[in-house]
Amino acid sequence: MLQSRLFTKTRKELPADEASKNAQLLIRAGYVHKEMAGAYSFLPLGLRVLERIKGIVREEMNGIGGQEIIMTALQRKELWERTNRWDDKQVDIWFKSQLKSGGDVGFGWSHEEPITDMMKSFIGSYRDLPVYVYQFQTKLRNELRAKSGLMRGREFVMKDLYSYSANEEEHRAFYEAVTAAYMRVFERIGLGDKTFFTFASGGAFTEFSHEFQTLTDAGEDVIYLHRGKKIAVNKEVLSEKVLDELGLKQSELEEVRAAEVGNIFSFGGKKSEELGLMFRDEKGEQKPAILGSYGIGITRAMGVLAELFADERGIVWPKEVAPYDVHLLLLPSDDEAVEKEASALYERLQNEGIHVLYDERKGVSAGEKFADADLIGIPVRAVISEKSMKAGGIEVKGRTEEKAVVMDAKKLLSLLKK
Amino acid sequence: MLQSRLFTKTRKELPADEASKNAQLLIRAGYVHKEMAGAYSFLPLGLRVLERIKGIVREEMNGIGGQEIIMTALQRKELWERTNRWDDKQVDIWFKSQLKSGGDVGFGWSHEEPITDMMKSFIGSYRDLPVYVYQFQTKLRNELRAKSGLMRGREFVMKDLYSYSANEEEHRAFYEAVTAAYMRVFERIGLGDKTFFTFASGGAFTEFSHEFQTLTDAGEDVIYLHRGKKIAVNKEVLSEKVLDELGLKQSELEEVRAAEVGNIFSFGGKKSEELGLMFRDEKGEQKPAILGSYGIGITRAMGVLAELFADERGIVWPKEVAPYDVHLLLLPSDDEAVEKEASALYERLQNEGIHVLYDERKGVSAGEKFADADLIGIPVRAVISEKSMKAGGIEVKGRTEEKAVVMDAKKLLSLLKK
Repeated sequence: MLQSRLFTKTRKELPADEASKNAQLLIRAGYVHKEMAGAYSFLPLGLRVLERIKGIVREEMNGIGGQEIIMTALQRKELWERTNRWDDKQVDIWFKSQLKSGGDVGFGWSHEEPITDMMKSFIGSYRDLPVYVYQFQTKLRNELRAKSGLMRGREFVMKDLYSYSANEEEHRAFYEAVTAAYMRVFERIGLGDKTFFTFASGGAFTEFSHEFQTLTDAGEDVIYLHRGKKIAVNKEVLSEKVLDELGLKQSELEEVRAAEVGNIFSFGGKKSEELGLMFRDEKGEQKPAILGSYGIGITRAMGVLAELFADERGIVWPKEVAPYDVHLLLLPSDDEAVEKEASALYERLQNEGIHVLYDERKGVSAGEKFADADLIGIPVRAVISEKSMKAGGIEVKGRTEEKAVVMDAKKLLSLLKK
Repeated sequence: MLQSRLFTKTRKELPADEASKNAQLLIRAGYVHKEMAGAYSFLPLGLRVLERIKGIVREEMNGIGGQEIIMTALQRKELWERTNRWDDKQVDIWFKSQLKSGGDVGFGWSHEEPITDMMKSFIGSYRDLPVYVYQFQTKLRNELRAKSGLMRGREFVMKDLYSYSANEEEHRAFYEAVTAAYMRVFERIGLGDKTFFTFASGGAFTEFSHEFQTLTDAGEDVIYLHRGKKIAVNKEVLSEKVLDELGLKQSELEEVRAAEVGNIFSFGGKKSEELGLMFRDEKGEQKPAILGSYGIGITRAMGVLAELFADERGIVWPKEVAPYDVHLLLLPSDDEAVEKEASALYERLQNEGIHVLYDERKGVSAGEKFADADLIGIPVRAVISEKSMKAGGIEVKGRTEEKAVVMDAKKLLSLLKK
């Protein structure tokens, strides 16, 4: 991508009315635009990061047998009434409206109900089980306060996966497969070291639940972490009984702030029973399908990444989720050979399948280009200038490295393909 | 994909409460699920078709310089009040709700207002123009009647592109580039022959507008078509004056029903003025950016395809948008060699990058497999059975062909790679 063509611009000043670091950085670097508190549009760079995160999640979900679908935002009142989750007294984050043809309609803040209801068309016998379906859905939640940037949205992208199993054993096996897949996701997007499997409250319908909590001061949760065992307990459920069950001692735990980037719930057979999703087992008996529900906050993960991977100059994207592999900078020069060299490198890198943001802007100083590159945060910066050409090549520097190294195109390519 | 793993099932019976042919077929074949009138979920096969259509549109939009973004569903009242499009008397298809934090909020049925408002952050000078941005957005429209299946939705996917130009000449050039790109899109997805550039009404803010109308009896529009000149006039604007301007004679025109699969509008500078999107021109004067707005109904196009490309046995997807390239059928046999042969072919085709739906289901008769293949409508059917193996290979048949031809894997591969 030619940077001169990119319609977004970086800005030095902090956006007004934005207290969170992740949103400040992402707005300043041109990744997102704030539409209202908790609702952000994703600009070309931001959409690329989002799609890379989704791509990784998609691979892992397909890897454990997930089938991708996309449900609707519009929700039928009568469906949610059957599970007692329509009333604002039960669920206080509904957006609701009225159909012109009459009656109320809701906007999806979660999708267990419609997916379970839909499955009645496809599940009738134990032979139809298990079924694993997932979607990347824009969820709408009428949050009273939304001030953590991308980390708490009124409108946000979630990957939600649902499992329907014939029995508890089958359910447990998949629950564990999801746990492992989630850890792989967080590892791959760069959050592995800081993300912990956390015991959490279950809510009315769930036997138990687990969260994946990423350590960050910007998180809204407090967890008690056992670093050695790499597990944590959410403050909400911390009790002597829970500690006993998990074989943990309070004294070994560290109180830390964290953000919930993923969660997994077991609903047992209750929701299927309420909604009528029954199947015939081997003996011909009618049983409710066992439901599991597994979320990853896609846009929240992006917010957490911007919180954690940044320095005073800007964002520092992990390689796997960066919008481009390399940021190629052409520095101002009166010598036409410099631009020719940079443009040739741009073509060559692209031909090799490398994703390049090429800053070929005219009338922009070297200092401004460096500052923009740091703010945007692409992992590798490659500079072509009179100086680099005299030194025999390209000045290449990792985003957090202090010093650049001069190398030729071949070496840069092998570095980028690693 | 192993068909035994696909959670959807075909059904023989017509879905209740669904009058439109496209939705009947798509539901019966397992592409979509009806959530409510005008709101459909997309199941694995349906999502694949949707993504293929989007992929083609994305290529063509990038080809004319479009930059992809994604805006929010949530809409600020005050923005739409400035252009007099908030009031239900002006726009009667709003879904609206109330924020828990106070105040009204709308759900996006169109996005000219928020995109234009956002552009104030990025456009200040003629040097920033032109800018072309697009998105694939789920639009929400509170339609009183939604009974045409995927062809008129309360919730549907639209590709909307917006152009901001410094002057009318620049705007016109891009408008024509979009027109050409749209015709390529409709050509590629299989609607080229039946889609016509149509003169249509402009509405309050637009100087003129054009539609892309696809001939189908299921369409909601009536157009007057000049087959020789390949242009049409929407009935809504047909007048002697319009005919004169276009150099058409009423007697040469044919009255036909059609569905609007695309539209392009010129807003001039009016909306930019209302929202304050001004730029400095070469002389330092403040001018409003010229706005163009260009839509393609992605889910509607899918509905139109199902209307047009179908026979009494099911859907007949055009090659470019089919969910898979080939439907491989293993027929029941006691000879293990048959399944071995089919599975080997499945692997081989996949290794060659061919997308295969492999019907390896047990306990399903040959007749049922043939009927399912016809209903699902993948362009090429490849059958492996005792009979085909005796004949020396694979029985291959195009979806609309009467007779199968026996060929070896190599020939099938070259056929599929064409």
